[in-house]
Amino acid sequence: MEIQELGEFGLIRHLTENIELKNAETKKGVGDDCAVLEFEAGRQVLVTTDLLMEGVHFDLQYVPLKHLGYKSAMANLSDIYAMNGRPRQMTVSIALSKRFSVEDMEEFYAGLRLACEAHGCDIVGGDTSASLTGLTISITCIGDARPEDIVFRHGAKDTDLICVTGDLGAAYMGLQLLEREKSVYNQQLHEARQRGEKSESLPPFQPDFSGREYLLERQLKPEARKDIIEALAKEGIRPTSMIDISDGLSSELYHICTQSKTGCRIYEERIPLDYQTAVMAEEMNMNVTTCALNGGEDYELLFTVPLTDHDRVSSIPGVKVIGHMTKPEQGLLLVCRDGVEMKLKAQGWKAT
Amino acid sequence: MEIQELGEFGLIRHLTENIELKNAETKKGVGDDCAVLEFEAGRQVLVTTDLLMEGVHFDLQYVPLKHLGYKSAMANLSDIYAMNGRPRQMTVSIALSKRFSVEDMEEFYAGLRLACEAHGCDIVGGDTSASLTGLTISITCIGDARPEDIVFRHGAKDTDLICVTGDLGAAYMGLQLLEREKSVYNQQLHEARQRGEKSESLPPFQPDFSGREYLLERQLKPEARKDIIEALAKEGIRPTSMIDISDGLSSELYHICTQSKTGCRIYEERIPLDYQTAVMAEEMNMNVTTCALNGGEDYELLFTVPLTDHDRVSSIPGVKVIGHMTKPEQGLLLVCRDGVEMKLKAQGWKAT
Repeated sequence: MEIQELGEFGLIRHLTENIELKNAETKKGVGDDCAVLEFEAGRQVLVTTDLLMEGVHFDLQYVPLKHLGYKSAMANLSDIYAMNGRPRQMTVSIALSKRFSVEDMEEFYAGLRLACEAHGCDIVGGDTSASLTGLTISITCIGDARPEDIVFRHGAKDTDLICVTGDLGAAYMGLQLLEREKSVYNQQLHEARQRGEKSESLPPFQPDFSGREYLLERQLKPEARKDIIEALAKEGIRPTSMIDISDGLSSELYHICTQSKTGCRIYEERIPLDYQTAVMAEEMNMNVTTCALNGGEDYELLFTVPLTDHDRVSSIPGVKVIGHMTKPEQGLLLVCRDGVEMKLKAQGWKAT
Repeated sequence: MEIQELGEFGLIRHLTENIELKNAETKKGVGDDCAVLEFEAGRQVLVTTDLLMEGVHFDLQYVPLKHLGYKSAMANLSDIYAMNGRPRQMTVSIALSKRFSVEDMEEFYAGLRLACEAHGCDIVGGDTSASLTGLTISITCIGDARPEDIVFRHGAKDTDLICVTGDLGAAYMGLQLLEREKSVYNQQLHEARQRGEKSESLPPFQPDFSGREYLLERQLKPEARKDIIEALAKEGIRPTSMIDISDGLSSELYHICTQSKTGCRIYEERIPLDYQTAVMAEEMNMNVTTCALNGGEDYELLFTVPLTDHDRVSSIPGVKVIGHMTKPEQGLLLVCRDGVEMKLKAQGWKAT
């Protein structure tokens, strides 16, 4: 169905009409000038927002819209957990060009709702608009926490332990894999056209990813680490600083060290890697440690705890101590497998 | 200065480093995974969001970036007032292509900050990203209100009076004027190029708008009606329903009537118009009432009050009673100057 058959109001109504508000604190969701929320006495409110542009942040040639909805939500949920909070509400704005259908947006919303339901988050509003080119997604997530529980980037001490969850670099290798398969497919399309065949006569883009499922899952269906936040609370551990790993470990360490006014020393051999990540890096002739340091989109947590929490934090499944903070003058260091120390560099974003 | 000289983190730092947090409830602004806010006991939280796309919502050929920043903020502030709340915080995300400079973004932020300062709103976060084409802006505004003060769209009774603030249609006529001057200028450019002249040799786009300043101001520098919200509070009037006029009076009446399950009858002769709006409509051979009903971007308030509030509401400068609500079966009616009744139609948005 074409979107103009529904119009703006019709599309919003269609996408949001079955949304159930689960949280008693959500007093009014979609349908007025504002959503109305109430927070329990004594809790502070957390707000995070992300803007995702087609062609910059995602490629719809290989990202199904349902996965895109799921991942867009997860990226925001992850920021709430990175403050040691719990997600409560979300607003979702989309701008879309004519090539998208009502069914496309249903798929996107299905993914979004799946993620929100798993994390107890109500969809309470948003905006829907036309776009001249492609799809734009803007999500704002609202959470809450008791003030004494909130963890910032700036609280690390120079003797704290550095911990990461899960494993790193797999989402990035998943992206490399998808990009490689896409270029192979596009090359086939190109050759078919040169032979005078119609591109419709070619099979659709369905490469074989067997044995690489984990990499794809990490790229297409990341999971925000609610479980870790719950485990930390259960163990009575309040990290001294925390951030989620969206831009890569190096970049996040840079933020924590800069804001905490410390240096850090992490050990290459301790960086958690999955077997598939290592195999894929080898195959692509890339350094797997570089992928883990700079890859991004892992949505794991990086946090610091006092030395005295060593045993308790090590007992949590999926948490690994990878090094420790240092005095600021020592800088940000990676101790390689051969004992050589290297300076870590934060990778930024560049305008295209 | 080119944006890539600063990089993503540098640009964010540069644009936000001088932002002072004015509200005691803003515990943490830009610089962590989330902003942290606290609300006074007994207050509910209001959230609204807007997504603005270059080429759909604004044209940078005639909208200066400072005005764009100002107006983008105002559109969101207006939604908070439309709930009878007060704005407290704002997040601002931008995606921009290579053609924008650091100075461009400084201009945009200058306008944004001017609007926020005038309305007691702290800028607490956002996202900055690359875009393949043009500028995208996403703003989320957070406000608060005592629960008993919040006004929804759904509370109008079938005998309530319908009020609007300010005057309508001027922002739309300002847009028509800018579009006309732009097409004249582009025609001149085209002819100059055909004569073999370089377009740089032509004077820049600086048409003469004398006598039309009000229309331009309404289009380029709208003001959210904080003053009206304050005046209503002072008079002890709590509207039974309220909405801001962003899509046009017809469309907003449709929302209020649908959600309140009423009809309405408004009087053409009572719709507030500025003299310049009427002159410009005449000149462009347009029906001025149609412009006022469907024009949009006025950012005035439309609200309903009980009949008993007639005298008090009429005493507020800038508020005009334009009609009254009716039983739902009577529909949405406009009583024309000649006494003929016409059905109002809500205009939607169409995908481009």
